[in-house]
Amino acid sequence: MKNITHLLSLVANDMHHVEEKMRSGIADRYPDLAAVVDYLMGAGGKRLRPVLTLMAANFYSVDKEKSYSLAASVELLHTATLVHDDLIDNSLLRRGMPTLNVSWNSGATILTGDYLFARSAELAAETQNIRIVTIFAQTLMTIVSGELQQLFNDGHGNVPNRQEYEQRIYAKTASLFAAGTNCGAILCGASAVEEQALHNYGYHLGMAFQIVDDILDFQGDEETLGKPVANDLRQGVATLPVMLFAQKSPNHPTIRKAVRRESVSDKEIESVVKQIKTSGCLEAAMTEARQLVQQAQTDLTVLPNNPYRQAMHEIADYAVSRNI
Amino acid sequence: MKNITHLLSLVANDMHHVEEKMRSGIADRYPDLAAVVDYLMGAGGKRLRPVLTLMAANFYSVDKEKSYSLAASVELLHTATLVHDDLIDNSLLRRGMPTLNVSWNSGATILTGDYLFARSAELAAETQNIRIVTIFAQTLMTIVSGELQQLFNDGHGNVPNRQEYEQRIYAKTASLFAAGTNCGAILCGASAVEEQALHNYGYHLGMAFQIVDDILDFQGDEETLGKPVANDLRQGVATLPVMLFAQKSPNHPTIRKAVRRESVSDKEIESVVKQIKTSGCLEAAMTEARQLVQQAQTDLTVLPNNPYRQAMHEIADYAVSRNI
Repeated sequence: MKNITHLLSLVANDMHHVEEKMRSGIADRYPDLAAVVDYLMGAGGKRLRPVLTLMAANFYSVDKEKSYSLAASVELLHTATLVHDDLIDNSLLRRGMPTLNVSWNSGATILTGDYLFARSAELAAETQNIRIVTIFAQTLMTIVSGELQQLFNDGHGNVPNRQEYEQRIYAKTASLFAAGTNCGAILCGASAVEEQALHNYGYHLGMAFQIVDDILDFQGDEETLGKPVANDLRQGVATLPVMLFAQKSPNHPTIRKAVRRESVSDKEIESVVKQIKTSGCLEAAMTEARQLVQQAQTDLTVLPNNPYRQAMHEIADYAVSRNI
Repeated sequence: MKNITHLLSLVANDMHHVEEKMRSGIADRYPDLAAVVDYLMGAGGKRLRPVLTLMAANFYSVDKEKSYSLAASVELLHTATLVHDDLIDNSLLRRGMPTLNVSWNSGATILTGDYLFARSAELAAETQNIRIVTIFAQTLMTIVSGELQQLFNDGHGNVPNRQEYEQRIYAKTASLFAAGTNCGAILCGASAVEEQALHNYGYHLGMAFQIVDDILDFQGDEETLGKPVANDLRQGVATLPVMLFAQKSPNHPTIRKAVRRESVSDKEIESVVKQIKTSGCLEAAMTEARQLVQQAQTDLTVLPNNPYRQAMHEIADYAVSRNI
């Protein structure tokens, strides 16, 4: 696994302020929420979204305080969607830690997610930029409608086609990466061309990032990932590795059963995971992720060549190197 | 019951545009949501919040399109909180119609609420006014934290004191009334004094409106209200009539059991409802609501005396006259 600590050091000081903003306005106003906020924030994560947002915001002179608000807004929006997702999926673990809905009742979980949405909107408004607030709202709509789409299509019985898959991972991941880097560009007054480039960088990187996530789902085990191997497939969600495998073996009984939401045994899952691993489909999926990373890196070339651009270039490499 | 149709006619044409805005950007973008949106919008309600928002926005020359966005944003925010509330309370009926969580699964219900929050934020941003967006976000925080407070205090075993009750009905109802009229004032460029007056009008009217709701909870029956009589008390929530009654009968066994969330029989509820009705406490609560309405009407006196002000004056009377 690539170490990205040296890249993050560029915004390490800024990130302290962002962490503070993420906690402020929650625990101090509503002590009852202090524990849950610490819990959610402590659960960690790489904070890639706010880091990239900050980097995009630093290409030109920027109001630092506003850049912290923006980055905190992006991460809180992400956190809020996770809180609701875990409840919807009935997930019991996230990042190896118990999720909120295990320790709390579902009402408190729904409301905590709502509160984080609201606080994240307030932080977005602190940028005093109406375009940023609009992008913020539209990104939340994209994320939520992606999930609704998935719910409506539940068990429609087919492995998704490429367009369906791309829409899903855009909604799930790339939309918020792109929103963060796009809004960073807006905040520092980048040109329209640069703004589009930073949007595209976030988009391509986010797509690659989600594909790698989908590959990792087949590689780790419960202890390192905090969830069972092939968790998506167990839930009936076919991701890129499965799609590529299904092109070679169109009528694989386990995959057919899984996407129809019929019950599949652990043994059947383990068997198909082994077949997918030896089929070369994980490598083929990784090749696609690498191509997206290259596109993200190409997007950066219109920007001034400074330490932020260099770090964003290297962070893109990290997206396809983690844990593999 | 007072008829307010003639008052609403002042903004009837505007309200057509608001209804359109409430539906646009949802059903057209995501056909899967069309049915649910029609369902929610069709469930009706008096649309008092957007009506008052529009009236406040019309004191001075206003960008009509923005006023529709603002009013639609206010009503969608209200709708979104109801969608999540019903799920949290496990309510099966609202306004006499089955709630979303009866007909849908809880995941879809959570996501639909989230989508409505996002759309409502986008509509708020259409006003292009960052103060309005900030008030919007802060109002959502107030509403949600009021509900969290209630969850955390669940079964603490006491009848609430006046401050607790006022905080709760402010969060639940008055905050959004006040936000609507306040933002309406901002949008039409009212002076700071007028803006404060319109905020206060919304606040006082909202407080009165919720007290009357709490009184009505003791008066109707399941068929007209769509929920059982004394539904709040059944859920362990003591409202103003109960608080006033508890001052006279501090150790009433049914009330003590209810606020401790111990199980209370239908017969016990019916008995205490009868006692509260004959105690004069409903009338005493109504007197308080009337005083708040008078304050709301006094708030209006700093504003130019035009048809909007007159309508807002009369609508305040309506708040304490419905169904009693």
